[in-house]
Amino acid sequence: MRVAGIKKTVGIRVRKLREANNWSQEQLGFKCGLHRNYVGGVERGERNVGIENLAKLAKALGVRPSELVP
Amino acid sequence: MRVAGIKKTVGIRVRKLREANNWSQEQLGFKCGLHRNYVGGVERGERNVGIENLAKLAKALGVRPSELVP
Repeated sequence: MRVAGIKKTVGIRVRKLREANNWSQEQLGFKCGLHRNYVGGVERGERNVGIENLAKLAKALGVRPSELVP
Repeated sequence: MRVAGIKKTVGIRVRKLREANNWSQEQLGFKCGLHRNYVGGVERGERNVGIENLAKLAKALGVRPSELVP
């Protein structure tokens, strides 16, 4: 796995799971205590997400953190 | 997975893999471009590791990032 690509991969997976639940970025953000703008940045692959926020996103999306990373 | 435990889990896995290679924290740090003190903090579960550093650690340890998180 290229180091450079991990932010894009995480973003794609978060977006896919969020859309599968028919949630807005704001709804997902509310569920995990993160701002909708932050969720948007994650999905666009712009954020170097910390593992604590990765765990929060995973929990809200009903998956394990390992399913959000390559 | 408890959100609170992810830092500890990552630390335990990094340490286990580093020790399996008989590398010092300094050696692992050198391989992934991170300071030995940072590697020590990761292993003690003190660092909220960003996914880019997670990818660097995984690459140096010869595993996928998903193998370092729960």
